[in-house]
Amino acid sequence: MTNIGIRPAVVDDIPAIVAMLADDALGASRESPDDLAPYLAAYERLQSDPNQFLVVAVRGDMVVGTLQLTVIPGLSRRGSTRSIIEGVRVHGSERGQGLGQQLIEWAVEESRRQDCQLVQLTSDAARPDAHRFYERLGFVGSHIGFKLQL
Amino acid sequence: MTNIGIRPAVVDDIPAIVAMLADDALGASRESPDDLAPYLAAYERLQSDPNQFLVVAVRGDMVVGTLQLTVIPGLSRRGSTRSIIEGVRVHGSERGQGLGQQLIEWAVEESRRQDCQLVQLTSDAARPDAHRFYERLGFVGSHIGFKLQL
Repeated sequence: MTNIGIRPAVVDDIPAIVAMLADDALGASRESPDDLAPYLAAYERLQSDPNQFLVVAVRGDMVVGTLQLTVIPGLSRRGSTRSIIEGVRVHGSERGQGLGQQLIEWAVEESRRQDCQLVQLTSDAARPDAHRFYERLGFVGSHIGFKLQL
Repeated sequence: MTNIGIRPAVVDDIPAIVAMLADDALGASRESPDDLAPYLAAYERLQSDPNQFLVVAVRGDMVVGTLQLTVIPGLSRRGSTRSIIEGVRVHGSERGQGLGQQLIEWAVEESRRQDCQLVQLTSDAARPDAHRFYERLGFVGSHIGFKLQL
């Protein structure tokens, strides 16, 4: 089996990323893989923001995972910079083989390279397996994540 | 009593902001109000990032509140842009008078102006009063917030 690589996402990866976002219990109703226009516009916004790191994991030519890392400077905690991980997805054919861990480890390493002192993420309370996964990787579920839909 | 105004933070506001960050059960051990250098460096990083909105609430000449709003583009949810609220603080002399609500309402309105579809924040599980406050403002505590200290 070819090894996994992790690299910045390019525009040609968008269909594969959107397919992974939609192939998920919670994502299915939120995404529109048949209409890529809003995703391509969002990709342009990501590209123009130097604090955004959208990456894909690839095995050979196939996109098999993705996540988005955002670097956020701030005053709290003695001027700490933190990073936020969003949109973690692993292709159905790759689940349970350690790729999720590899993606999160990449994000943690990149956060160190970007001089972050803290890595954050929120996970839907309806995903207990994900919580155990993050705890195993050393994350502490100390907070409640609130959302307001506009 | 003079009315409250909310405006972008300027460098001269930093001592007052740091004093509020430190005047807090969880913040006391995390902040260093006697050494402003790391905060001033962080302020420069915030100023150079067009997706960062660090604001203060003022009553007359006095800084009485603060928060940081970050705008984050993304692919999930049909290319939604989300905003994240961090570092919400209200001066001890102003607590219980609606200023926290005014700050959050400002952040929600600014998020609309920035075309965000979602506003997010995390609140320490040790702050149940804060949770009731955010729920009253329409936020849904649907997620668990994980942190990893680097």
